[in-house]
Amino acid sequence: MRVYIADIAEYDGQDVTIHGWLHNRRSSGKLHFLIVRDGTGFIQAVMSKAAVGDEIFTRADHLGQETSLSVTGTVRADTRAKGGYEIDATSFEVHGESHDYPITPKEHGVDYLLDRRHLWIRTERQTAILRVRHEVISAVRDFFNNRGFILCDTPIFTPAACEGTTTLFPVQYFEDTTAYLTQSGQLYNEANAMALGKVYCFGPTFRAEKSKTRRHLTEFWMVEPEVAYAGLNDIIELAEGLITSVVARVLDKRKAELQLLERDTAMLERVTAPFPRLTYDEATKMLRDKGQPFEHGTDLGGTDETVLSEQFDRPFCVTHYPGSVKAFYMKPDPQQPDKALCVDVLAPEGYGEIIGGGQRLDDLDLLLKRIKEHDLPQDAFEWYLDLRRYGTVPHGGFGMGIERCVSWICKLEHVRETIPYPRMLYRLYP
Amino acid sequence: MRVYIADIAEYDGQDVTIHGWLHNRRSSGKLHFLIVRDGTGFIQAVMSKAAVGDEIFTRADHLGQETSLSVTGTVRADTRAKGGYEIDATSFEVHGESHDYPITPKEHGVDYLLDRRHLWIRTERQTAILRVRHEVISAVRDFFNNRGFILCDTPIFTPAACEGTTTLFPVQYFEDTTAYLTQSGQLYNEANAMALGKVYCFGPTFRAEKSKTRRHLTEFWMVEPEVAYAGLNDIIELAEGLITSVVARVLDKRKAELQLLERDTAMLERVTAPFPRLTYDEATKMLRDKGQPFEHGTDLGGTDETVLSEQFDRPFCVTHYPGSVKAFYMKPDPQQPDKALCVDVLAPEGYGEIIGGGQRLDDLDLLLKRIKEHDLPQDAFEWYLDLRRYGTVPHGGFGMGIERCVSWICKLEHVRETIPYPRMLYRLYP
Repeated sequence: MRVYIADIAEYDGQDVTIHGWLHNRRSSGKLHFLIVRDGTGFIQAVMSKAAVGDEIFTRADHLGQETSLSVTGTVRADTRAKGGYEIDATSFEVHGESHDYPITPKEHGVDYLLDRRHLWIRTERQTAILRVRHEVISAVRDFFNNRGFILCDTPIFTPAACEGTTTLFPVQYFEDTTAYLTQSGQLYNEANAMALGKVYCFGPTFRAEKSKTRRHLTEFWMVEPEVAYAGLNDIIELAEGLITSVVARVLDKRKAELQLLERDTAMLERVTAPFPRLTYDEATKMLRDKGQPFEHGTDLGGTDETVLSEQFDRPFCVTHYPGSVKAFYMKPDPQQPDKALCVDVLAPEGYGEIIGGGQRLDDLDLLLKRIKEHDLPQDAFEWYLDLRRYGTVPHGGFGMGIERCVSWICKLEHVRETIPYPRMLYRLYP
Repeated sequence: MRVYIADIAEYDGQDVTIHGWLHNRRSSGKLHFLIVRDGTGFIQAVMSKAAVGDEIFTRADHLGQETSLSVTGTVRADTRAKGGYEIDATSFEVHGESHDYPITPKEHGVDYLLDRRHLWIRTERQTAILRVRHEVISAVRDFFNNRGFILCDTPIFTPAACEGTTTLFPVQYFEDTTAYLTQSGQLYNEANAMALGKVYCFGPTFRAEKSKTRRHLTEFWMVEPEVAYAGLNDIIELAEGLITSVVARVLDKRKAELQLLERDTAMLERVTAPFPRLTYDEATKMLRDKGQPFEHGTDLGGTDETVLSEQFDRPFCVTHYPGSVKAFYMKPDPQQPDKALCVDVLAPEGYGEIIGGGQRLDDLDLLLKRIKEHDLPQDAFEWYLDLRRYGTVPHGGFGMGIERCVSWICKLEHVRETIPYPRMLYRLYP
């Protein structure tokens, strides 16, 4: 009977066949210990010469790492085994050989591994990270679906830039037109929220970032909810709900993966709402107190975020940035019009921003003024202005970067391990 | 108390406030009938002059279509009402005015509506379609997640073409490199399946299609599962399971939307597995019998698919196309090597292909030969060849186009209504 390793506990004492790959092998006299992986888990198959006979035993002498093979045998509970079970092998069959597999248990450099990303993802550590990514994305979607949000995919090809043009990827769109790859679905989300009330988009977004930092990819996935009839506080509560729900889900479903990654889960168990909130003014004071040089009125940089982020043991919110450092569509705070009704949520432990959002400008005249001030082509934004012409309402939303979120939850050094095929300044292969 | 229209049944007899937009209005003497929508539904608010007084009643005289407003009143069950409830309005508050709203209840041309897609999506029909799309996507993800598949996002920026180059969108990737927007995540999926056993990707894909048909968009969403240790029959059963599960879910959760779209749900209730299967040879005979001119050995065209598709009252499978009309990575049938172990699933009622897939070529030498025959650059495929060098296994998968699937389930004339912002040859705005 063909079974997956993940389900092995259901077959204790039974004869099963595992279809997989040879992860590792050692031998001691009349025993082979074959570590087999099948994508759902790893298990040790013990093959004794007495059980399989000389011929089969000798064939197993020369199996290379990553040979694809089916192993048949009896499942046996063993408390010393990693997953609690081993297989007493009675036979095996090779499907595809594998010689001189390029990724051995020894240490390899990151560039070497990234060049072989299609094989690197077979390792225990990388599959654990990809499973956490899967769980984060499932949890995000369930969170919004269970709250009545409608998924509205926003376009990848856009006619105009949403935030600045220096980091845009242009695409020749047939003969006469240039399209730009989306940097955010937000503007479209706003239209969708006016149609469907509560919406989210969730897709790849693109930034032609020339900076080589541990937080940047040129292609990354972002979830962006948008809510009609919502103010800044609603948006902050939504962000808190999302993050706590995602972290709780990973703690619940991916304990084994977090353990393998040696993640201190106590830090994740602290993630409960409400999160600490500080204003931009308070954050900049905190930076100065920590001796971090900072010019008041400018945006927070990566290092500033790291310093702030190290002060907290759970995610926290920074609100009310100066309007001048934020995008044209931010609504000013009526109490202090030079500040925006915006929020960034920063992950702790030095990880920095994972969410950015706020309330949107819903006044037609002020929006027109901002578009002019930012030197944006009004033509391209006529449809967006329509949302203020025909029944404008207070509304807001945010964007959460999936790779940064996974990087923090797994406590990784770099976002490049959080996506199967990371795309960076000098990285387009495989 | 603020409530959403979708939840109104829970508040029978209670005083509530709906935040929404005025969809339509008529008056008869001392009564205003205001149809209000809030994104989750539509409801009629009845405002009597006696209840609200002269001043409020007169203010409501001039509300334009799509004015944003909050209506407060008492929920009253009424079997004659569309959703079973009305609101006896006691007051209202306008948030944003709306004059000369460009989409009126009269008929508009498709180009006019597509130019105003950001407003067109507010109509009852378009929100119903978008809700069905949402449900289809949720059902697809649940189907795979519940079966132990791991979501592995494949890259949008790819270094080489997967299937032909004429329909690729090139992107300038920083100074020196050209990237191409993905047409399919399949090749990467194959690597992922070798790492994780059962995987799927689900994202936007791109084809620079110059043809203007009712089935083509330049940007469309595709779900692509891939399974290690699977043959053609496993893949067909997976496709059947997916389609029946998605259709059952929409029938269960989106009955109201299908009714609004006047969809004959009896046709959808027939969608049960197994689907009829015919080989390419049988399909071509059927075409000839129907008087459709067809050259044996060529691929099925759009019209051929329509003719075939009209012969069936449920989805059906066409297998074993000539290898020469299929992609380089298809595995030949050992029994008849000029035929591929492939399957297309065609929707009935003239809709044609919604799924294409099959078993992949797992033999290194034959794959090398095919890459040469197809004049593909071997360098770019070295990583893909590695999958056959290091523990190759039988494997397969398919791709299902979401827009075509939604178009069929809703029985639409054209895929352009199945996505919020369709992208076509001459359509990049809004």
